Amino acid sequence: METPILSKVIRGETVESVHRGHLIVLAGDGEVLFSIGDPQTVTYFRSASKPFQALPFITSGAAGEFGFTDEEVALACASHSGEPVHVAIASRMLERIGLKESDLQCGTHLPFNENESERLLRADAEINQLYNNCSGKHAAMLAFARRINADTDRYLLPQSPVQQAILKTVSIFCEIPIEEIQIGIDGCCAPNFAMPLRRMTRGFLNLVAPPDDFADDVVRSAAARIVSAMLNRPELIGGSERLDTMLMKAASGKLISKVGADGVWLCGIMPSDQYPKGAAIALKIEDGDDKRARPVVAVTVLKRLDILSGDALPELSPMPIKNRRGDIVGRVEAVLNR
Amino acid sequence: METPILSKVIRGETVESVHRGHLIVLAGDGEVLFSIGDPQTVTYFRSASKPFQALPFITSGAAGEFGFTDEEVALACASHSGEPVHVAIASRMLERIGLKESDLQCGTHLPFNENESERLLRADAEINQLYNNCSGKHAAMLAFARRINADTDRYLLPQSPVQQAILKTVSIFCEIPIEEIQIGIDGCCAPNFAMPLRRMTRGFLNLVAPPDDFADDVVRSAAARIVSAMLNRPELIGGSERLDTMLMKAASGKLISKVGADGVWLCGIMPSDQYPKGAAIALKIEDGDDKRARPVVAVTVLKRLDILSGDALPELSPMPIKNRRGDIVGRVEAVLNR
Repeated sequence: METPILSKVIRGETVESVHRGHLIVLAGDGEVLFSIGDPQTVTYFRSASKPFQALPFITSGAAGEFGFTDEEVALACASHSGEPVHVAIASRMLERIGLKESDLQCGTHLPFNENESERLLRADAEINQLYNNCSGKHAAMLAFARRINADTDRYLLPQSPVQQAILKTVSIFCEIPIEEIQIGIDGCCAPNFAMPLRRMTRGFLNLVAPPDDFADDVVRSAAARIVSAMLNRPELIGGSERLDTMLMKAASGKLISKVGADGVWLCGIMPSDQYPKGAAIALKIEDGDDKRARPVVAVTVLKRLDILSGDALPELSPMPIKNRRGDIVGRVEAVLNR
Repeated sequence: METPILSKVIRGETVESVHRGHLIVLAGDGEVLFSIGDPQTVTYFRSASKPFQALPFITSGAAGEFGFTDEEVALACASHSGEPVHVAIASRMLERIGLKESDLQCGTHLPFNENESERLLRADAEINQLYNNCSGKHAAMLAFARRINADTDRYLLPQSPVQQAILKTVSIFCEIPIEEIQIGIDGCCAPNFAMPLRRMTRGFLNLVAPPDDFADDVVRSAAARIVSAMLNRPELIGGSERLDTMLMKAASGKLISKVGADGVWLCGIMPSDQYPKGAAIALKIEDGDDKRARPVVAVTVLKRLDILSGDALPELSPMPIKNRRGDIVGRVEAVLNR
């Protein structure tokens, strides 16, 4: 089956490029509300799996023992922008467990927030691992390792008890056997998980609207804490002008949003009159785009579902293309024809 | 027709993303040596049109009147990295015509070379338009404007004599009527040209191996000067670790290479025993990718054509994917199945 075009990049009046992909919207009652492309497409979860990677940090009692706050739980689920607030929280998470920045093994990159990146470089500042968008996740993994007395030097090894517990959590939430999950190494050096997109939506449904028979109270209450932390602190999940933060702020409490690298986006829609058992959305831009098609398609499908109002986030529907002087010379449009 | 996959992005053992596109190799005698996808696909030429945008700068006598050197002609055709050598040459080009950096209208961006970008920011340096990858092109446009007494304040307007002469040049070289060329505004604020990929290969063939009946001596000798400048100064056309520079250095005199934004790549292959009337290649990655599929496909097709040896540029065939600590966690492969 041909992968459908989800977005067109138009310069002047001419289509210059297109982005293809797969999109599925699954309601909590199992009904497919919307589907384009192949919901069985296998790809990596990437950072959209962070809520599940944070779960053992809660269920193990690590968050409780070390007194982690909701904003620290939120940062554990974040792909943050490296803004001062994010870095301060990541630092505090490590302090709580008696570890330091050099105990992280996520590696270093410039803050995703370009203004902050430029500000730091102009101040000739050292860029350390706290600025890595995954530093909160890694701090939570280290807290979990400390709680279960696992080796904090080896917390990223796929065979470590930390990663084994995370893998099991992903398997339970996404309702996919462990042996069907393909493991690869993420940009931040942690193991990650490839599976069909449809399994990812199931994972997000079990997070935001678990059926009565799903898991035990410890797991359910950990999931509720993660969802609540994400809902309450959207600015920590991404950052200024980042998609997750923009969507969660615009939808004010109706959804949790989590991007993953290489064009992945997952969204959990909270139960409401409109969607009594909640809903979940999974998007994969086939070519890995995260700057053009992903944001525009995400906003467009949320409007189609009446989760966002038609006039929300006008800067993303369509998204203008500007030249180096700031003039608008084109636009990125969504194409959602089933 | 479905656009074929030209490249797979593989993490661990799982295909994470794919890039589709169109590729055509046209020999000087008109034979299609290789074709995948649709050679009639219409897209923008983007920076791959720079040799043609520089032509009136030569044919008008501007380069001669103001004493431009070959390295300055090369920079007029460049999408340079903003390294010190590039900035110095762009600055000298403006000096020759009595203009200054603020007369450029290309806008500002950080140097494409990330080391240089970081070095400048750490020195808290001002980033001006000379660092724009198109500054050489704009300086040449201004020189042409001065030569023909056109208004240097309005040199980017599509109706200016500067842009009208460039449009006519593109039409002549690509053998496409002006009225069939769709105009859009490029990232650097200059008018750009959308046309079928196959027309772009014709343009490059007329540049590197013009048939005896193509154009007059002034145009032919200007084309020869541009080709010679590009061949002799590959480090000016891109920069350190940039595709054009890498390919031209690896092929040592056998080709000129010119990338364009949004996944475009054009290559002109000089006449040789193997290709007596030369050849030209046009590639468009459908989704606009320029970091993964484009370099890997370019190197692979040049090896397939025996222009590059099998062991050339091993870092691009396949291209490793690394995590933030520098470990190899995947690869980008070309898929060239006709």
